[in-house]
Amino acid sequence: MKSTTIIALLHGPDQPGLVSRMSSWIFQHGGNIHHADQHKDLQANIFFQRVEWSPTGDAKEEAARFRAFASEELGMNVHVALSTNWPKVALFVSRLNHCFHDLILRFKAGEMNGELACIVSNHKELQAASESYGLSYYHVPVTKANKPEAEAEQLKIVKDHGCELVVMARYMQVLSDNFLTEVDCPVINIHHSFLPAFAGGKPYHQAHERGVKLIGATAHYATAELDKGPIIHQDVIRINHRNSIPDLTRKGKDLEKTVFAHAIRLHLDNRILVYNNKTVVFD
Amino acid sequence: MKSTTIIALLHGPDQPGLVSRMSSWIFQHGGNIHHADQHKDLQANIFFQRVEWSPTGDAKEEAARFRAFASEELGMNVHVALSTNWPKVALFVSRLNHCFHDLILRFKAGEMNGELACIVSNHKELQAASESYGLSYYHVPVTKANKPEAEAEQLKIVKDHGCELVVMARYMQVLSDNFLTEVDCPVINIHHSFLPAFAGGKPYHQAHERGVKLIGATAHYATAELDKGPIIHQDVIRINHRNSIPDLTRKGKDLEKTVFAHAIRLHLDNRILVYNNKTVVFD
Amino acid sequence: MKSTTIIALLHGPDQPGLVSRMSSWIFQHGGNIHHADQHKDLQANIFFQRVEWSPTGDAKEEAARFRAFASEELGMNVHVALSTNWPKVALFVSRLNHCFHDLILRFKAGEMNGELACIVSNHKELQAASESYGLSYYHVPVTKANKPEAEAEQLKIVKDHGCELVVMARYMQVLSDNFLTEVDCPVINIHHSFLPAFAGGKPYHQAHERGVKLIGATAHYATAELDKGPIIHQDVIRINHRNSIPDLTRKGKDLEKTVFAHAIRLHLDNRILVYNNKTVVFD
Amino acid sequence: MKSTTIIALLHGPDQPGLVSRMSSWIFQHGGNIHHADQHKDLQANIFFQRVEWSPTGDAKEEAARFRAFASEELGMNVHVALSTNWPKVALFVSRLNHCFHDLILRFKAGEMNGELACIVSNHKELQAASESYGLSYYHVPVTKANKPEAEAEQLKIVKDHGCELVVMARYMQVLSDNFLTEVDCPVINIHHSFLPAFAGGKPYHQAHERGVKLIGATAHYATAELDKGPIIHQDVIRINHRNSIPDLTRKGKDLEKTVFAHAIRLHLDNRILVYNNKTVVFD
Repeated sequence: MKSTTIIALLHGPDQPGLVSRMSSWIFQHGGNIHHADQHKDLQANIFFQRVEWSPTGDAKEEAARFRAFASEELGMNVHVALSTNWPKVALFVSRLNHCFHDLILRFKAGEMNGELACIVSNHKELQAASESYGLSYYHVPVTKANKPEAEAEQLKIVKDHGCELVVMARYMQVLSDNFLTEVDCPVINIHHSFLPAFAGGKPYHQAHERGVKLIGATAHYATAELDKGPIIHQDVIRINHRNSIPDLTRKGKDLEKTVFAHAIRLHLDNRILVYNNKTVVFD
Repeated sequence: MKSTTIIALLHGPDQPGLVSRMSSWIFQHGGNIHHADQHKDLQANIFFQRVEWSPTGDAKEEAARFRAFASEELGMNVHVALSTNWPKVALFVSRLNHCFHDLILRFKAGEMNGELACIVSNHKELQAASESYGLSYYHVPVTKANKPEAEAEQLKIVKDHGCELVVMARYMQVLSDNFLTEVDCPVINIHHSFLPAFAGGKPYHQAHERGVKLIGATAHYATAELDKGPIIHQDVIRINHRNSIPDLTRKGKDLEKTVFAHAIRLHLDNRILVYNNKTVVFD
Repeated sequence: MKSTTIIALLHGPDQPGLVSRMSSWIFQHGGNIHHADQHKDLQANIFFQRVEWSPTGDAKEEAARFRAFASEELGMNVHVALSTNWPKVALFVSRLNHCFHDLILRFKAGEMNGELACIVSNHKELQAASESYGLSYYHVPVTKANKPEAEAEQLKIVKDHGCELVVMARYMQVLSDNFLTEVDCPVINIHHSFLPAFAGGKPYHQAHERGVKLIGATAHYATAELDKGPIIHQDVIRINHRNSIPDLTRKGKDLEKTVFAHAIRLHLDNRILVYNNKTVVFD
Repeated sequence: MKSTTIIALLHGPDQPGLVSRMSSWIFQHGGNIHHADQHKDLQANIFFQRVEWSPTGDAKEEAARFRAFASEELGMNVHVALSTNWPKVALFVSRLNHCFHDLILRFKAGEMNGELACIVSNHKELQAASESYGLSYYHVPVTKANKPEAEAEQLKIVKDHGCELVVMARYMQVLSDNFLTEVDCPVINIHHSFLPAFAGGKPYHQAHERGVKLIGATAHYATAELDKGPIIHQDVIRINHRNSIPDLTRKGKDLEKTVFAHAIRLHLDNRILVYNNKTVVFD
């Protein structure tokens, strides 16, 4: 059985001795560092760190003490997590099922350090499949007219399940600025194109029209500005003139699955730090 | 020694029996087909073909006869070339030398079915290197004021050398609509980004600012509308938060070299058919 | 609705006029060629072709007539298929479920031009999942002692379902020479390494031990000689020193899924020609 | 102008407080850490670290002090380098020139943190090109009979130039165990295949014969056991049935250039730690 480790993600203005002070704090509290990765943005003079260690005492208490130390004494922005404390995840879906099945099977296979708590959808198509996987399914229809009420209902579901991450698995609806503020946890989206090219809808049609030779997919954190949030992961696949739009769609689906799953795993492994609308990924 | 083959690139409205009529023509004239690749755009009802064969008689005459047959009797757009007839190539450069050296060494190594005829530059930096490679170098300074005269001089150089292809190896200047019309041969450009993302200048700065996880390069035919010509080849390379803009530039240079060389080779192998501002690449 | 096309895969000794004679035959019988790809191995003087056309008359009869023509009059090895005639597929599995779920979901999503007819396993672990997918599951335990009887039972299942393809989705057992002969249809296997490196078992352990920087997966046709059959498709993924063997296994599973699915799709699209223990893939 | 940083690569048995003790030492000596990356092999209980910092005092003296501290007080294997202290590099070549030109142009373009000191070859073909680059060229013919004397001469050249790295740019000769011991510095080789597949000679012929779908290249440190040294970097490129052996050779050359250059850059950036015949690459 794996023992609990503490993982801290930190960033803030650089100052002399940061690595030393943090590692000494951990050492003096009996911790044993397994992995640590520091980076400095020399232009912006910002320091970034991911550090993971085994504590000797109670992991939760030790994590809280480290958080207090890093934020109060060092003035760092700090996120602290326990490796054995798996966040609950809300999966938002629509009718498209490729990311839906792929993610659920990965969670069930133990590939993800998180727990799927609920499925939320504006359609009924994936209800039976969700239930056969043993997952709670909430059907919340969304129209232009009812959007505020629908989002309030979605928020309640997310909160009631204690979710700390929302995953938009080709949910196909824009979440409002208000929702993103109120939900108060990260929201990860998959865009079916290589952003910033072909932002918006129907990217495969756009790509086919423009005659590009590679199509891509982009996983990013959702922000109020559509398709402009911090990019987590991207990949591309080669296409040619023999590929019709349905071929691009099929190739794109494979790409979306792997790019999305990788991004969610990075997040659940506490490997992503957001900063200036960009990500630092400690992989 | 390789014997001469004839290569034909054809496209036009589909009609019954095209493959049969063309292959029968070749067979009846004593030709032996080595490779043939047909494709049909079912939506647009356009037929595309690349066919390569060994003629029995004089290759040049046979090629002319086939061209007449395909255009007059079948109503196809047709380009016919001989494998042993290497086009002369004009290389336009500025100060940046990575594509310059890379391409020249590939031509010298016999990787390209073409002949480097001349180097044209608006700067003097690469003159000595060009001459040490034994290549004719033409220094044509370009300013806002003298652009028409400069382009006239460039055109004369290209024509005097009998060039059938112009290659812009990070030439960094926009060729005018008039030049592109007058030169009357394909012009291949390398754009140091994954078009259509980050078109225009300083794409690595744009990519760094946006926080993308992959940077790319795009080889395309130059057209009057900047960075909008038919895309020939593209590729990407992974970057991360540790990469500064100079790192992106260095990684991008490697990508530009291989993407550009591949595109030029495809062109010189007569593998590219342009159609609706897109390319069909028979590779 | 897509109309039926006929697809022919041919190879044999090259002779003058093959393309012409085949395309003329198709034209004279009222067929309209959609795609055709010819290739010649100049060293071995072997001709290869994949051609796809819309017939005017009854597709099945026309296909039989073409087969007779190509084999008897042209002396070619020929495989002819109808685009609407989806082969039945037997899926052999063991306990590992990643390729199992991935393939079934792809068949259900309509990505594959075939029909999953039955699941055969030497274990019971995937029985419930198979049945929840609505698929027939046959549990055939295999031991050293009962292998001939077990294989006889497996053969009967495959034959009773009229399967024309067997897919070994990490089945983990070697099929005997006798089985491969008797089953009389292609058998596709996925090997969890980049063959020929690390053939045999535990390739991820071998890769970790050797310190390679990329791991791969290989889909190939099964032959009597283990891991030596014709390679259909391969791909690799980058690894680093932070990756433990479980990480390699997880990354490898993703690779196996996409490589395997792509190979099976190529087969079901009649894009693979086997020749000299190698494949010609018309993609 | 970039100021001097100190880079240390360390590994050894894990013990509590290593990160803390090292970073505190650096802090107490007035150093400012720019990047640090620690890794622990949990199975083998080995600790690895790359740390880079700006010293306040004399960099060379500080580096020596740190080396003494890390080896004597912490019992670590330690390599310390100054970012501004570029090692001299000996380039061994034969007749093949693709890696030769590529590397020299990269050194000249300032892409490499090292200095090309001399070219050593068993042939005369690249003498003129070397000299036109302004590089010292030593022609040392090697035969079975004179190998010991030839290697003694090569050793003397390497030592006389003060080289700290030998690069075998398709040198095509095996360096003896004795040479590798006597030269007393790392030797990097490029193998034109994806090791361990197709070790030894003519890998493209082997790959073509086996019908693989990807060919690769591997950069590794040379050891007495041929093609078995620690792997630094690998990459692959896709091939198909249309590619003849000359095509594989051409594609392979591109791969060899980029894989080799990347490996040499990693080495000159002090990013590689060798351990148990494997590398840990801090990239």
